[in-house]
Amino acid sequence: MPPPKKPRRTAERILEVTLALFNRFGEPNVSTTLISAELRISPGNLYYHYPAKDELINALVDRHERALGQILPAAEEVRDVEDAWLFLHLLFERTWEYRFLYRDLNDLLSKNRHLETRMAAMLGAREQAFAGLVGGLRRADVLRADDADTAPLATAMLVLATYWLSYEYVRDPRRALEPGREAQALQRGAWHVLGLLLPYLEPASRGHLRGLAEAYREAA
Amino acid sequence: MPPPKKPRRTAERILEVTLALFNRFGEPNVSTTLISAELRISPGNLYYHYPAKDELINALVDRHERALGQILPAAEEVRDVEDAWLFLHLLFERTWEYRFLYRDLNDLLSKNRHLETRMAAMLGAREQAFAGLVGGLRRADVLRADDADTAPLATAMLVLATYWLSYEYVRDPRRALEPGREAQALQRGAWHVLGLLLPYLEPASRGHLRGLAEAYREAA
Repeated sequence: MPPPKKPRRTAERILEVTLALFNRFGEPNVSTTLISAELRISPGNLYYHYPAKDELINALVDRHERALGQILPAAEEVRDVEDAWLFLHLLFERTWEYRFLYRDLNDLLSKNRHLETRMAAMLGAREQAFAGLVGGLRRADVLRADDADTAPLATAMLVLATYWLSYEYVRDPRRALEPGREAQALQRGAWHVLGLLLPYLEPASRGHLRGLAEAYREAA
Repeated sequence: MPPPKKPRRTAERILEVTLALFNRFGEPNVSTTLISAELRISPGNLYYHYPAKDELINALVDRHERALGQILPAAEEVRDVEDAWLFLHLLFERTWEYRFLYRDLNDLLSKNRHLETRMAAMLGAREQAFAGLVGGLRRADVLRADDADTAPLATAMLVLATYWLSYEYVRDPRRALEPGREAQALQRGAWHVLGLLLPYLEPASRGHLRGLAEAYREAA
Protein backbone atom coordinates (compact mmCIF):
# COMPACT_ATOMS: atom_id res chain seq x y z
CA MET A 1 0.00 0.00 0.00
CA PRO A 2 1.51 3.40 -0.98
CA PRO A 3 2.01 5.90 1.83
CA PRO A 4 -0.62 8.69 2.00
CA LYS A 5 0.26 11.88 0.16
CA LYS A 6 2.04 14.38 2.33
CA PRO A 7 0.12 17.63 3.00
CA ARG A 8 3.05 19.61 1.67
CA ARG A 9 2.85 17.92 -1.68
CA THR A 10 -0.92 18.46 -1.93
CA ALA A 11 -0.52 22.15 -1.07
CA GLU A 12 2.06 22.43 -3.84
CA ARG A 13 -0.14 20.68 -6.38
CA ILE A 14 -3.09 22.94 -5.44
CA LEU A 15 -1.00 26.03 -6.17
CA GLU A 16 0.22 24.70 -9.51
CA VAL A 17 -3.27 23.82 -10.72
CA THR A 18 -4.72 27.10 -9.40
CA LEU A 19 -2.06 29.09 -11.22
CA ALA A 20 -2.77 27.24 -14.47
CA LEU A 21 -6.54 27.83 -14.14
CA PHE A 22 -6.16 31.51 -13.22
CA ASN A 23 -3.83 32.05 -16.18
CA ARG A 24 -6.14 30.25 -18.56
CA PHE A 25 -9.55 31.67 -17.58
CA GLY A 26 -8.75 34.76 -15.52
CA GLU A 27 -9.07 34.83 -11.74
CA PRO A 28 -12.64 36.28 -11.71
CA ASN A 29 -13.83 33.26 -13.72
CA VAL A 30 -12.28 30.55 -11.50
CA SER A 31 -14.11 29.45 -8.32
CA THR A 32 -12.70 27.27 -5.54
CA THR A 33 -15.26 24.67 -6.64
CA LEU A 34 -13.67 24.58 -10.08
CA ILE A 35 -10.22 24.29 -8.52
CA SER A 36 -11.16 21.32 -6.32
CA ALA A 37 -12.94 19.64 -9.25
CA GLU A 38 -9.88 20.07 -11.47
CA LEU A 39 -7.69 18.60 -8.70
CA ARG A 40 -10.17 15.79 -7.99
CA ILE A 41 -10.05 16.59 -4.30
CA SER A 42 -12.96 17.49 -2.02
CA PRO A 43 -13.77 21.17 -1.33
CA GLY A 44 -13.04 20.31 2.32
CA ASN A 45 -9.53 19.16 1.48
CA LEU A 46 -8.91 22.36 -0.50
CA TYR A 47 -10.30 24.37 2.41
CA TYR A 48 -7.94 22.54 4.80
CA HIS A 49 -4.93 23.85 2.85
CA TYR A 50 -6.30 27.23 1.75
CA PRO A 51 -9.39 28.39 3.69
CA ALA A 52 -10.17 31.16 1.16
CA LYS A 53 -9.52 32.04 -2.46
CA ASP A 54 -7.55 35.06 -1.30
CA GLU A 55 -5.06 32.76 0.43
CA LEU A 56 -4.41 31.01 -2.86
CA ILE A 57 -3.90 34.37 -4.53
CA ASN A 58 -1.61 35.53 -1.72
CA ALA A 59 0.54 32.39 -1.92
CA LEU A 60 0.92 32.90 -5.67
CA VAL A 61 1.73 36.60 -5.22
CA ASP A 62 4.50 35.68 -2.78
CA ARG A 63 5.95 33.17 -5.23
CA HIS A 64 5.89 35.73 -8.00
CA GLU A 65 7.65 38.25 -5.79
CA ARG A 66 10.35 35.70 -4.86
CA ALA A 67 10.86 34.79 -8.53
CA LEU A 68 11.21 38.48 -9.43
CA GLY A 69 13.61 38.98 -6.54
CA GLN A 70 15.89 36.35 -8.06
CA ILE A 71 16.25 38.11 -11.40
CA LEU A 72 15.97 41.86 -10.69
CA PRO A 73 19.52 42.21 -9.28
CA ALA A 74 20.84 41.15 -12.72
CA ALA A 75 19.74 44.53 -14.10
CA GLU A 76 22.69 46.22 -12.39
CA GLU A 77 25.09 43.87 -14.19
CA VAL A 78 23.85 44.83 -17.67
CA ARG A 79 26.75 46.18 -19.76
CA ASP A 80 25.54 45.92 -23.36
CA VAL A 81 22.34 45.50 -25.39
CA GLU A 82 22.77 41.72 -25.43
CA ASP A 83 22.66 41.65 -21.61
CA ALA A 84 19.69 44.04 -21.67
CA TRP A 85 17.83 41.83 -24.17
CA LEU A 86 18.41 38.76 -21.98
CA PHE A 87 17.29 40.60 -18.86
CA LEU A 88 14.05 41.71 -20.50
CA HIS A 89 13.33 38.15 -21.60
CA LEU A 90 13.83 36.83 -18.09
CA LEU A 91 11.56 39.54 -16.71
CA PHE A 92 8.83 38.88 -19.28
CA GLU A 93 9.04 35.12 -18.67
CA ARG A 94 8.41 35.67 -14.96
CA THR A 95 5.52 38.03 -15.79
CA TRP A 96 4.04 35.52 -18.26
CA GLU A 97 4.13 32.73 -15.63
CA TYR A 98 1.88 34.84 -13.39
CA ARG A 99 -0.03 36.65 -16.14
CA PHE A 100 -3.37 36.31 -14.32
CA LEU A 101 -2.10 38.94 -11.86
CA TYR A 102 -1.59 41.43 -14.66
CA ARG A 103 -4.75 40.52 -16.55
CA ASP A 104 -7.08 41.69 -13.76
CA LEU A 105 -4.66 43.66 -11.66
CA ASN A 106 -6.91 46.58 -10.78
CA ASP A 107 -9.84 44.47 -9.67
CA LEU A 108 -7.59 42.12 -7.69
CA LEU A 109 -6.01 45.13 -6.01
CA SER A 110 -9.35 46.57 -4.99
CA LYS A 111 -10.18 43.37 -3.11
CA ASN A 112 -6.88 42.19 -1.68
CA ARG A 113 -4.82 44.21 0.76
CA HIS A 114 -1.84 41.83 0.61
CA LEU A 115 -1.58 42.21 -3.15
CA GLU A 116 -1.92 45.98 -2.78
CA THR A 117 1.21 46.24 -0.63
CA ARG A 118 3.20 43.55 -2.47
CA MET A 119 2.44 44.92 -5.93
CA ALA A 120 3.50 48.43 -4.90
CA ALA A 121 6.78 46.91 -3.64
CA MET A 122 7.24 44.85 -6.82
CA LEU A 123 6.69 47.86 -9.07
CA GLY A 124 9.14 49.87 -7.00
CA ALA A 125 11.74 47.09 -7.29
CA ARG A 126 11.18 46.83 -11.05
CA GLU A 127 11.53 50.58 -11.52
CA GLN A 128 14.77 50.52 -9.54
CA ALA A 129 15.99 47.62 -11.71
CA PHE A 130 15.30 49.59 -14.88
CA ALA A 131 17.11 52.61 -13.46
CA GLY A 132 19.99 50.22 -12.64
CA LEU A 133 19.97 48.86 -16.19
CA VAL A 134 20.15 52.37 -17.65
CA GLY A 135 22.91 53.22 -15.17
CA GLY A 136 24.89 50.09 -16.13
CA LEU A 137 24.70 50.97 -19.82
CA ARG A 138 25.77 54.54 -19.06
CA ARG A 139 28.79 53.38 -17.07
CA ALA A 140 29.76 51.09 -19.96
CA ASP A 141 29.49 54.09 -22.37
CA VAL A 142 26.87 52.19 -24.36
CA LEU A 143 24.23 54.79 -23.62
CA ARG A 144 24.33 58.56 -23.16
CA ALA A 145 21.66 60.19 -21.03
CA ASP A 146 21.50 63.06 -18.56
CA ASP A 147 20.62 62.29 -14.96
CA ALA A 148 17.35 64.13 -15.62
CA ASP A 149 16.45 61.58 -18.34
CA THR A 150 17.06 58.42 -16.32
CA ALA A 151 14.07 58.56 -13.94
CA PRO A 152 11.35 59.20 -16.58
CA LEU A 153 13.01 56.59 -18.81
CA ALA A 154 12.89 53.98 -16.03
CA THR A 155 9.22 54.84 -15.37
CA ALA A 156 8.33 54.50 -19.05
CA MET A 157 10.14 51.13 -19.23
CA LEU A 158 8.28 50.00 -16.12
CA VAL A 159 4.81 50.95 -17.41
CA LEU A 160 5.49 49.44 -20.84
CA ALA A 161 6.87 46.19 -19.34
CA THR A 162 4.06 45.91 -16.77
CA TYR A 163 1.22 46.42 -19.24
CA TRP A 164 2.66 44.90 -22.40
CA LEU A 165 0.80 41.61 -21.95
CA SER A 166 -2.44 43.52 -21.28
CA TYR A 167 -1.89 45.41 -24.50
CA GLU A 168 -1.37 42.14 -26.39
CA TYR A 169 -4.58 40.87 -24.79
CA VAL A 170 -6.63 43.92 -25.82
CA ARG A 171 -5.50 43.54 -29.40
CA ASP A 172 -6.51 39.88 -29.56
CA PRO A 173 -8.46 38.77 -26.45
CA ARG A 174 -9.31 35.32 -27.75
CA ARG A 175 -5.74 34.19 -28.30
CA ALA A 176 -3.16 36.58 -26.83
CA LEU A 177 -2.60 34.77 -23.54
CA GLU A 178 -2.76 31.20 -24.88
CA PRO A 179 0.42 29.17 -24.28
CA GLY A 180 1.45 29.08 -27.98
CA ARG A 181 1.63 32.87 -28.14
CA GLU A 182 4.23 33.31 -25.44
CA ALA A 183 7.41 33.58 -27.52
CA GLN A 184 6.13 36.24 -29.91
CA ALA A 185 4.44 38.30 -27.21
CA LEU A 186 7.61 38.33 -25.11
CA GLN A 187 9.80 39.30 -28.05
CA ARG A 188 7.53 42.17 -29.03
CA GLY A 189 7.48 43.30 -25.40
CA ALA A 190 11.25 43.15 -25.01
CA TRP A 191 11.72 45.02 -28.27
CA HIS A 192 9.30 47.82 -27.35
CA VAL A 193 10.71 48.28 -23.86
CA LEU A 194 14.31 48.36 -25.11
CA GLY A 195 13.19 50.49 -28.07
CA LEU A 196 12.80 53.33 -25.55
CA LEU A 197 16.60 53.28 -25.22
CA LEU A 198 17.29 53.58 -28.97
CA PRO A 199 17.78 57.36 -29.15
CA TYR A 200 20.16 57.23 -26.18
CA LEU A 201 22.35 54.35 -27.44
CA GLU A 202 25.65 54.95 -29.17
CA PRO A 203 25.35 54.05 -32.89
CA ALA A 204 26.97 50.58 -32.82
CA SER A 205 24.72 49.45 -29.96
CA ARG A 206 21.69 50.93 -31.69
CA GLY A 207 22.49 48.83 -34.75
CA HIS A 208 23.07 45.79 -32.54
CA LEU A 209 19.67 46.17 -30.84
CA ARG A 210 17.87 46.56 -34.17
CA GLY A 211 19.69 43.46 -35.40
CA LEU A 212 18.63 41.40 -32.38
CA ALA A 213 14.99 42.42 -32.83
CA GLU A 214 15.18 41.61 -36.54
CA ALA A 215 16.73 38.18 -35.93
CA TYR A 216 14.02 37.28 -33.41
CA ARG A 217 11.25 38.52 -35.69
CA GLU A 218 12.52 36.29 -38.48
CA ALA A 219 12.83 33.27 -36.19
CA ALA A 220 9.21 33.75 -35.06
CA MET B 1 -49.49 68.58 -13.03
CA PRO B 2 -46.04 68.29 -14.65
CA PRO B 3 -45.84 66.22 -17.84
CA PRO B 4 -44.40 62.70 -17.41
CA LYS B 5 -40.66 62.41 -18.00
CA LYS B 6 -39.80 61.57 -21.57
CA PRO B 7 -38.17 58.15 -22.12
CA ARG B 8 -35.25 59.84 -23.87
CA ARG B 9 -34.44 61.88 -20.82
CA THR B 10 -34.64 58.87 -18.51
CA ALA B 11 -32.33 56.87 -20.79
CA GLU B 12 -29.87 59.72 -20.67
CA ARG B 13 -30.03 60.00 -16.89
CA ILE B 14 -29.53 56.23 -16.56
CA LEU B 15 -26.33 56.43 -18.59
CA GLU B 16 -24.97 59.36 -16.59
CA VAL B 17 -25.60 57.68 -13.23
CA THR B 18 -24.26 54.33 -14.47
CA LEU B 19 -21.07 55.97 -15.71
CA ALA B 20 -20.57 57.69 -12.35
CA LEU B 21 -21.11 54.43 -10.43
CA PHE B 22 -18.86 52.39 -12.73
CA ASN B 23 -16.12 55.00 -12.41
CA ARG B 24 -16.45 55.16 -8.64
CA PHE B 25 -16.70 51.47 -7.73
CA GLY B 26 -15.51 49.59 -10.82
CA GLU B 27 -17.91 47.85 -13.19
CA PRO B 28 -17.59 44.39 -11.52
CA ASN B 29 -18.83 45.90 -8.25
CA VAL B 30 -21.92 47.64 -9.65
CA SER B 31 -25.11 45.61 -10.22
CA THR B 32 -28.20 46.75 -12.14
CA THR B 33 -30.00 46.64 -8.76
CA LEU B 34 -27.58 49.24 -7.42
CA ILE B 35 -28.06 51.37 -10.53
CA SER B 36 -31.86 51.39 -10.25
CA ALA B 37 -31.65 52.10 -6.51
CA GLU B 38 -29.31 55.04 -7.10
CA LEU B 39 -31.68 56.38 -9.78
CA ARG B 40 -34.74 55.74 -7.59
CA ILE B 41 -36.44 53.95 -10.47
CA SER B 42 -37.80 50.40 -10.51
CA PRO B 43 -35.65 47.56 -11.89
CA GLY B 44 -38.43 47.14 -14.47
CA ASN B 45 -38.03 50.71 -15.68
CA LEU B 46 -34.27 50.25 -15.98
CA TYR B 47 -34.89 46.99 -17.84
CA TYR B 48 -37.27 48.79 -20.23
CA HIS B 49 -34.47 51.11 -21.32
CA TYR B 50 -31.50 48.72 -21.04
CA PRO B 51 -32.48 45.02 -20.87
CA ALA B 52 -28.98 43.95 -19.75
CA LYS B 53 -25.92 45.39 -18.06
CA ASP B 54 -23.97 44.79 -21.27
CA GLU B 55 -26.27 47.20 -23.09
CA LEU B 56 -25.38 49.92 -20.60
CA ILE B 57 -21.70 49.15 -21.12
CA ASN B 58 -22.11 49.16 -24.90
CA ALA B 59 -23.90 52.53 -24.89
CA LEU B 60 -21.08 54.01 -22.79
CA VAL B 61 -18.43 52.44 -25.06
CA ASP B 62 -20.07 54.06 -28.08
CA ARG B 63 -20.12 57.45 -26.35
CA HIS B 64 -16.46 57.11 -25.45
CA GLU B 65 -15.58 56.22 -29.03
CA ARG B 66 -17.52 59.24 -30.36
CA ALA B 67 -15.79 61.56 -27.87
CA LEU B 68 -12.38 60.19 -28.90
CA GLY B 69 -13.32 60.59 -32.58
CA GLN B 70 -13.87 64.30 -31.96
CA ILE B 71 -10.38 64.93 -30.62
CA LEU B 72 -8.08 62.44 -32.37
CA PRO B 73 -7.96 64.37 -35.70
CA ALA B 74 -6.32 67.27 -33.80
CA ALA B 75 -3.13 65.17 -33.50
CA GLU B 76 -2.34 65.81 -37.15
CA GLU B 77 -2.46 69.57 -36.54
CA VAL B 78 0.19 69.48 -33.79
CA ARG B 79 3.12 71.74 -34.75
CA ASP B 80 4.92 72.39 -31.45
CA VAL B 81 5.22 70.99 -27.92
CA GLU B 82 2.50 73.37 -26.67
CA ASP B 83 0.03 71.82 -29.16
CA ALA B 84 1.24 68.35 -28.17
CA TRP B 85 0.76 69.10 -24.47
CA LEU B 86 -2.80 70.33 -25.11
CA PHE B 87 -3.62 67.28 -27.22
CA LEU B 88 -2.40 64.90 -24.51
CA HIS B 89 -4.54 66.71 -21.93
CA LEU B 90 -7.63 66.42 -24.09
CA LEU B 91 -6.94 62.74 -24.66
CA PHE B 92 -6.40 62.03 -20.95
CA GLU B 93 -9.55 63.97 -20.03
CA ARG B 94 -11.61 61.75 -22.34
CA THR B 95 -9.92 58.65 -20.88
CA TRP B 96 -10.56 59.85 -17.32
CA GLU B 97 -14.30 60.39 -18.07
CA TYR B 98 -14.57 56.70 -18.96
CA ARG B 99 -11.90 55.37 -16.63
CA PHE B 100 -13.99 52.33 -15.61
CA LEU B 101 -13.30 50.92 -19.09
CA TYR B 102 -9.57 51.07 -18.50
CA ARG B 103 -9.72 49.92 -14.88
CA ASP B 104 -11.08 46.46 -15.76
CA LEU B 105 -10.42 46.39 -19.44
CA ASN B 106 -9.26 42.80 -19.76
CA ASP B 107 -12.15 41.31 -17.84
CA LEU B 108 -14.68 43.48 -19.67
CA LEU B 109 -13.15 42.40 -22.97
CA SER B 110 -13.41 38.72 -22.12
CA LYS B 111 -17.17 39.09 -21.61
CA ASN B 112 -18.26 41.61 -24.21
CA ARG B 113 -17.86 41.14 -27.92
CA HIS B 114 -18.92 44.71 -28.77
CA LEU B 115 -16.22 46.17 -26.55
CA GLU B 116 -13.70 43.75 -28.05
CA THR B 117 -14.20 45.11 -31.57
CA ARG B 118 -14.63 48.77 -30.55
CA MET B 119 -11.59 48.80 -28.27
CA ALA B 120 -9.39 47.33 -31.00
CA ALA B 121 -10.64 50.09 -33.31
CA MET B 122 -10.09 52.78 -30.66
CA LEU B 123 -6.53 51.63 -29.97
CA GLY B 124 -5.81 51.60 -33.70
CA ALA B 125 -7.17 55.15 -34.04
CA ARG B 126 -5.11 56.33 -31.06
CA GLU B 127 -1.95 54.77 -32.42
CA GLN B 128 -2.57 56.46 -35.77
CA ALA B 129 -3.12 59.77 -33.95
CA PHE B 130 0.22 59.43 -32.14
CA ALA B 131 1.96 58.63 -35.43
CA GLY B 132 0.24 61.75 -36.85
CA LEU B 133 1.46 63.84 -33.92
CA VAL B 134 5.05 62.66 -34.42
CA GLY B 135 4.70 63.31 -38.16
CA GLY B 136 3.37 66.84 -37.55
CA LEU B 137 6.31 67.68 -35.27
CA ARG B 138 8.72 66.26 -37.86
CA ARG B 139 7.24 68.37 -40.65
CA ALA B 140 7.53 71.46 -38.41
CA ASP B 141 11.24 70.59 -37.79
CA VAL B 142 10.54 70.41 -34.06
CA LEU B 143 11.47 66.75 -33.90
CA ARG B 144 14.02 64.63 -35.74
CA ALA B 145 13.35 60.93 -36.14
CA ASP B 146 13.89 58.32 -38.82
CA ASP B 147 10.88 56.66 -40.40
CA ALA B 148 11.99 53.48 -38.60
CA ASP B 149 11.60 55.22 -35.23
CA THR B 150 8.10 56.59 -35.74
CA ALA B 151 6.09 53.34 -35.50
CA PRO B 152 7.66 51.99 -32.26
CA LEU B 153 7.46 55.51 -30.79
CA ALA B 154 3.72 55.73 -31.58
CA THR B 155 3.19 52.26 -30.05
CA ALA B 156 5.05 53.20 -26.88
CA MET B 157 3.03 56.45 -26.59
CA LEU B 158 -0.16 54.42 -27.07
CA VAL B 159 0.63 51.84 -24.38
CA LEU B 160 1.79 54.49 -21.92
CA ALA B 161 -1.29 56.68 -22.53
CA THR B 162 -3.70 53.71 -22.39
CA TYR B 163 -2.35 52.29 -19.13
CA TRP B 164 -1.21 55.42 -17.32
CA LEU B 165 -4.35 55.60 -15.16
CA SER B 166 -4.01 51.89 -14.32
CA TYR B 167 -0.45 52.54 -13.25
CA GLU B 168 -1.61 55.42 -11.03
CA TYR B 169 -4.22 53.08 -9.59
CA VAL B 170 -1.71 50.31 -8.80
CA ARG B 171 0.49 52.76 -6.96
CA ASP B 172 -2.37 54.02 -4.79
CA PRO B 173 -5.56 51.94 -5.22
CA ARG B 174 -7.49 53.68 -2.47
CA ARG B 175 -7.26 57.16 -3.89
CA ALA B 176 -5.86 57.25 -7.44
CA LEU B 177 -9.17 57.35 -9.30
CA GLU B 178 -11.03 59.65 -6.91
CA PRO B 179 -12.28 62.90 -8.51
CA GLY B 180 -9.82 65.16 -6.64
CA ARG B 181 -6.83 63.32 -8.13
CA GLU B 182 -7.66 63.97 -11.75
CA ALA B 183 -5.49 67.02 -12.46
CA GLN B 184 -2.25 65.59 -11.08
CA ALA B 185 -2.76 62.16 -12.64
CA LEU B 186 -3.40 63.69 -16.07
CA GLN B 187 -0.36 65.96 -15.84
CA ARG B 188 1.93 63.11 -14.86
CA GLY B 189 0.49 61.04 -17.70
CA ALA B 190 0.91 63.81 -20.28
CA TRP B 191 4.46 64.43 -19.10
CA HIS B 192 5.48 60.77 -19.30
CA VAL B 193 3.92 60.20 -22.72
CA LEU B 194 5.52 63.34 -24.15
CA GLY B 195 8.75 62.51 -22.30
CA LEU B 196 9.19 59.72 -24.86
CA LEU B 197 9.75 62.47 -27.45
CA LEU B 198 12.48 64.29 -25.46
CA PRO B 199 15.52 62.70 -27.13
CA TYR B 200 14.05 63.41 -30.57
CA LEU B 201 13.15 67.07 -29.98
CA GLU B 202 15.36 69.91 -31.14
CA PRO B 203 16.97 71.60 -28.09
CA ALA B 204 14.67 74.65 -27.80
CA SER B 205 11.56 72.45 -27.86
CA ARG B 206 13.12 70.06 -25.38
CA GLY B 207 13.63 72.97 -22.99
CA HIS B 208 10.09 74.18 -23.67
CA LEU B 209 8.60 70.77 -22.82
CA ARG B 210 10.60 70.49 -19.60
CA GLY B 211 9.46 74.01 -18.71
CA LEU B 212 5.78 73.14 -19.28
CA ALA B 213 6.07 70.05 -17.09
CA GLU B 214 7.83 72.06 -14.39
CA ALA B 215 5.19 74.84 -14.43
CA TYR B 216 2.37 72.30 -14.09
CA ARG B 217 4.17 70.46 -11.28
CA GLU B 218 4.52 73.70 -9.34
CA ALA B 219 0.89 74.65 -9.91
CA ALA B 220 -0.23 71.24 -8.57
